[in-house]
Amino acid sequence: MDKIAVLGAGSWGTALAMVLADNGHAVTLWGKRTEQINEINEYHTNKRFLPEIGLPTTIKATTNLEDALDGANSILLVVPTKAIREVCQKLNTILNRPVTIIHASKGIEPNTSKRISELIEEEISEANRDAIVVLSGPSHAEEVALRHPTTVTVASKNMEEARKVQDLFNNQYFRVYTNEDIVGVEIGGALKNIIALAAGITDGLGYGDNAKAALITRGLAEIIRLGKAIGANTQTFAGLTGMGDLIVTCTSVHSRNWRAGNLLGQGKSLDEVLENMGMVVEGVRTTQAAYHMANEIGVEMPIVNELYAVLFEGKDPKNAVDSLMSRGKRHETESVTNFISDLAE
Amino acid sequence: MDKIAVLGAGSWGTALAMVLADNGHAVTLWGKRTEQINEINEYHTNKRFLPEIGLPTTIKATTNLEDALDGANSILLVVPTKAIREVCQKLNTILNRPVTIIHASKGIEPNTSKRISELIEEEISEANRDAIVVLSGPSHAEEVALRHPTTVTVASKNMEEARKVQDLFNNQYFRVYTNEDIVGVEIGGALKNIIALAAGITDGLGYGDNAKAALITRGLAEIIRLGKAIGANTQTFAGLTGMGDLIVTCTSVHSRNWRAGNLLGQGKSLDEVLENMGMVVEGVRTTQAAYHMANEIGVEMPIVNELYAVLFEGKDPKNAVDSLMSRGKRHETESVTNFISDLAE
Repeated sequence: MDKIAVLGAGSWGTALAMVLADNGHAVTLWGKRTEQINEINEYHTNKRFLPEIGLPTTIKATTNLEDALDGANSILLVVPTKAIREVCQKLNTILNRPVTIIHASKGIEPNTSKRISELIEEEISEANRDAIVVLSGPSHAEEVALRHPTTVTVASKNMEEARKVQDLFNNQYFRVYTNEDIVGVEIGGALKNIIALAAGITDGLGYGDNAKAALITRGLAEIIRLGKAIGANTQTFAGLTGMGDLIVTCTSVHSRNWRAGNLLGQGKSLDEVLENMGMVVEGVRTTQAAYHMANEIGVEMPIVNELYAVLFEGKDPKNAVDSLMSRGKRHETESVTNFISDLAE
Repeated sequence: MDKIAVLGAGSWGTALAMVLADNGHAVTLWGKRTEQINEINEYHTNKRFLPEIGLPTTIKATTNLEDALDGANSILLVVPTKAIREVCQKLNTILNRPVTIIHASKGIEPNTSKRISELIEEEISEANRDAIVVLSGPSHAEEVALRHPTTVTVASKNMEEARKVQDLFNNQYFRVYTNEDIVGVEIGGALKNIIALAAGITDGLGYGDNAKAALITRGLAEIIRLGKAIGANTQTFAGLTGMGDLIVTCTSVHSRNWRAGNLLGQGKSLDEVLENMGMVVEGVRTTQAAYHMANEIGVEMPIVNELYAVLFEGKDPKNAVDSLMSRGKRHETESVTNFISDLAE
């Protein structure tokens, strides 16, 4: 039995805390909202984020970060990417021993273009951390909380630690695989939210499943192009954290990025959409980051460019999608699948 | 303006006839049911297969194959794969000049393991055919008939003819790309129906989107393994006719293979399901073909094997899916994505 602090009591943090509790570990869930933390401790529910789910009664919750960290061997970070640096800075002041840092947040920091594990490396001193391990894959929190069969990947520079994290989470309904390619796993997880926003827009416009399938196919091409340029293993993108997560995020009703895109496609403004969602829509921030990365590195990302224009330059969503659909090239390997030449190298 | 005979008045044949008619070609739609053919000519509807769609009035329909072929430069074959040989034999007796044969049927012949273009080659003498061109991609007929944006691929050994066919069909809402790899295009189109059946089963069991995304990811791996073994270009599978068509077929409510699988997952027998559908479910026949091909060639296809056991050996669908979900290997490249080592060669 391990003692694990789960930082972030949103839907994904709570669902992962449930998996760990199901596996017999001592889990403390940390969140900022007193009312929510009390609800978890008293009623064993987290109705705002996981309605109709009863939590294992062994999960303890607290608003006090020091209490959450007390005696923990591992820390699972599941906060919005915007809050990663701030939480890590606090962690660094409290910790006085090295712990394993696992994260399950999906995004890239705008301006710096850094991945989450890089932010953690920068903010937590080496004395306070063992390996950094990322957990990612096609995994809507709502389904994991219902204990529906789910497969994910853990990746780290330190494979021994990755296997330990695999053992922490692995069980009958939650299958965990390992992968050495932390860059590919983080990039796939972050960028799929961009394609999900775009897929939501095509659905919001009423364009249907044929158009969306073409968009997803091209979307994976863009993800691979960027990933390859920054050192990811292109093979990772054909697996759970690439194609798998992309599919689930673009086609599931649970996806908040898809839902946000859907509202944009229906003609709502970005401000209206974000207000309407009431949850963080990571894809908006990641679009900004990917747009600047692609320009800096010189990688062609037409979907990212069009989405950036919709989100930040007021371009009409219909014009954006139509220009994507009617690109000039006519041989398949020229446009739709030019990424596969990367895969086939 | 070309004169084109469309053989097969089901949903896909009718939708493709509409595209050709929209492009100004003279289209004759051939079908066997007198009542349906009269309905198309008199009311310009085909309510059984495309409810609520008004057909272009320029489409003529006939039950007489000789009339349909009269003066046609091109023939589009869109009949169930089971009927391909029989229809081609009839064509061969009527034709007295070479014509372009386009086909848009998706399957493999059990016993012989032959692709559709190979059946056409066998049944129509060289004197009666120019190139054989296949048209495939993520394209539910219902959406094409509504003129929703759709992208497809045409492939042929003869690229000049492929480009002619591209010009026949290409328009604002129906974008056509070319590809040389007829083997990959036909295999991707055929085998995705198997994965769609399996995806329907997981949905019918109530396993959710996480499980389905993992299944689709592994499904593409199986398709690529088989395709590579018989000479397909593995790059094709990352494009519209591979990944694109797989996604749309596994996640769209329009997919009849998914719907058939869904009923199986809910506990219906195969006989009940086929009766209930009232349309051809190509995936059932293709599972048989792929199962035998995989065994003969020695390619590992766990999803095909489990589905074969469900369809033809009475295995319980839940046991089949559970054994797929809990396979022993633990490193991602060992199991989920071992196909990508193929792609990366």
